[in-house]
Amino acid sequence: MSTDNKYMQLALEHAELGRGNVSPNPLVGCVIVKDDKVIATGYHKEFGGPHAEVDAISKVDGDLKGCTVYVTLEPCTHHGKTPPCADLLIEKKPDRVVIAMEDPNPIVKGNGISALQGNGIETSVGILVEEAMVLNRVFITNMIEKRPFVTAKFATTLDGFIAQRDHESKWISCEDSRIDVHKFRSEIDAIMVGSGTVRQDNPMLDVRLAKGRNPKRVVLASHLQLPLSSHLLKDENANENTIIYCTNEAQNIKLVDQLRSEGLNVKSISKNSKGKVDVSLALRDLLKEYHIGHIMLEGGAKLFSEFYELDFIDEIITYQSPKILGSGISPFEYIRPLHLSDDSRFRLAKTDVIDTDIKAVWARK
Amino acid sequence: MSTDNKYMQLALEHAELGRGNVSPNPLVGCVIVKDDKVIATGYHKEFGGPHAEVDAISKVDGDLKGCTVYVTLEPCTHHGKTPPCADLLIEKKPDRVVIAMEDPNPIVKGNGISALQGNGIETSVGILVEEAMVLNRVFITNMIEKRPFVTAKFATTLDGFIAQRDHESKWISCEDSRIDVHKFRSEIDAIMVGSGTVRQDNPMLDVRLAKGRNPKRVVLASHLQLPLSSHLLKDENANENTIIYCTNEAQNIKLVDQLRSEGLNVKSISKNSKGKVDVSLALRDLLKEYHIGHIMLEGGAKLFSEFYELDFIDEIITYQSPKILGSGISPFEYIRPLHLSDDSRFRLAKTDVIDTDIKAVWARK
Repeated sequence: MSTDNKYMQLALEHAELGRGNVSPNPLVGCVIVKDDKVIATGYHKEFGGPHAEVDAISKVDGDLKGCTVYVTLEPCTHHGKTPPCADLLIEKKPDRVVIAMEDPNPIVKGNGISALQGNGIETSVGILVEEAMVLNRVFITNMIEKRPFVTAKFATTLDGFIAQRDHESKWISCEDSRIDVHKFRSEIDAIMVGSGTVRQDNPMLDVRLAKGRNPKRVVLASHLQLPLSSHLLKDENANENTIIYCTNEAQNIKLVDQLRSEGLNVKSISKNSKGKVDVSLALRDLLKEYHIGHIMLEGGAKLFSEFYELDFIDEIITYQSPKILGSGISPFEYIRPLHLSDDSRFRLAKTDVIDTDIKAVWARK
Repeated sequence: MSTDNKYMQLALEHAELGRGNVSPNPLVGCVIVKDDKVIATGYHKEFGGPHAEVDAISKVDGDLKGCTVYVTLEPCTHHGKTPPCADLLIEKKPDRVVIAMEDPNPIVKGNGISALQGNGIETSVGILVEEAMVLNRVFITNMIEKRPFVTAKFATTLDGFIAQRDHESKWISCEDSRIDVHKFRSEIDAIMVGSGTVRQDNPMLDVRLAKGRNPKRVVLASHLQLPLSSHLLKDENANENTIIYCTNEAQNIKLVDQLRSEGLNVKSISKNSKGKVDVSLALRDLLKEYHIGHIMLEGGAKLFSEFYELDFIDEIITYQSPKILGSGISPFEYIRPLHLSDDSRFRLAKTDVIDTDIKAVWARK
């Protein structure tokens, strides 16, 4: 591995330390090297907090003459919650800045690199760029698509079903798989379910089996067919953590008022041609109003199918158990049937054995 | 690892060298050790050929005084195609014989060990017994169940389907997965399909994508609804390698005569309560008359479902691809639906990534 790759790898590892706390900001790591020795490291620790470059530079006395700065994302040039990092680097005068990837944010893209170069600082761009893009796939989707990154998660039987035909789905996967899901919940910003899943499963969608914070719970309920007694509407986190999307039709007005009077967060938005909540509007709203950069779909088949048809699924995580059902509910059974001659939108990115199950991550091609 | 485990592991590796050539005999390996040095190795190379002990002992001059003999299966005591190995060992007088597992064959079981002990040879039994049982799971099933070991193999989409609803199933898995299947075909004795698969897919069921011999092709066709032009009935291997099972009903007699006059091997056997071929009789016949120790089911869903209901599936091999269909044919869709509260008969034994797919082996618990 080249020297640049070695230090960029270290910067990527530091970036990873911010996971779960920075969304919808990017994960960024920074390593400062002098005479082939690491003299400081830093990373973006929390949403709105100091950027990775600031964190690392704060640990070095004086300027950065003779230093190379490795940073996983192009230094920013805009005044956001913190001053521009490019200005700080220009002030500290490192010999060279090595950057994994350009900032996909249109108001930064390329400007940080130009600013450094215009001030006589040598730059190298594209070191471990693929790894950096995987690391910040959520941020990239947020910036380019203006919506949260969407992970669809489901457990299936050996023969591919996510529930019995009568909707019973407890428990397909093993306890260790469920713990793994709870750990993942603590790293993302929100979980989304359809109203059918609330009625049939009455899920809590919290982090009980692992340590970490609870994500927001988002319910797509076009016609507000939700039992008032369900966990998502009644538990101690309901007012703070539950967001309900329904259509802005007249027939919903009374129910919206009733739920709001209970302190619940109900948002009525335009309907699509099928009379259901316009998912693209809901997603934009979640990113813009609630800073939800990464959302996980946890069912049911109608939700998975609608997101698939709209091409809003960025990643699928499956847990396959050894159970056999024979017949049951398939994850995408409401889509217009596809053909084997069609290319898949997904590719296998990762597999793990979790006790009795196979966990697989399928990434968007 | 203890010394015994080390040499038994070596004996197991030698046993493996016979794979594909000894069925329905067991895979057996033998290692002879003197003064902590391996002085000879042997294995059972082909059906009816010398046993592993004979193979190894033939490489040593004189007797085996001072030697320990490691053998993966209890030495035989019966006069079969070759003289009893226990007698040969008694004649050669090793100090000790280490045995992984007892012979499950009721006419040997325990007798080989008793014979050695009765003649003053120290014996140790059960070294790496689990590995030996996995190695000889086919032979054990043959001996105890009096039928071939049954592997059900299917490729599925990400969402669990083995074909489109219109039965189109080319190609779910990637080319490397298909090569892997052909390699496996060369190691087993026969492939079985239902008549629907012959009509819909017209498969060749041979070893084209890998090196090795072709297995027999067995068709369950209760009412002989098979196109005369299909590969399995017409290709150059049809008379030699295809076995067709139908019921012995009067309505089949004319078709049976016609197929036999074409040189085809048609066996008419008793029907079950549903008027179909009695699968248990067909399986016994395959082991007894054709020495088929290991058979692979390659579809379709009716065949998989019938074998599942009869509890004749010993192993499932799945290849899961990244394709999505939405709806399609499920592998066990003809079984009486099961419940998630039911225990699975299977456990995950092995996973591999094969190019774009996940290969998983699910073993009978």
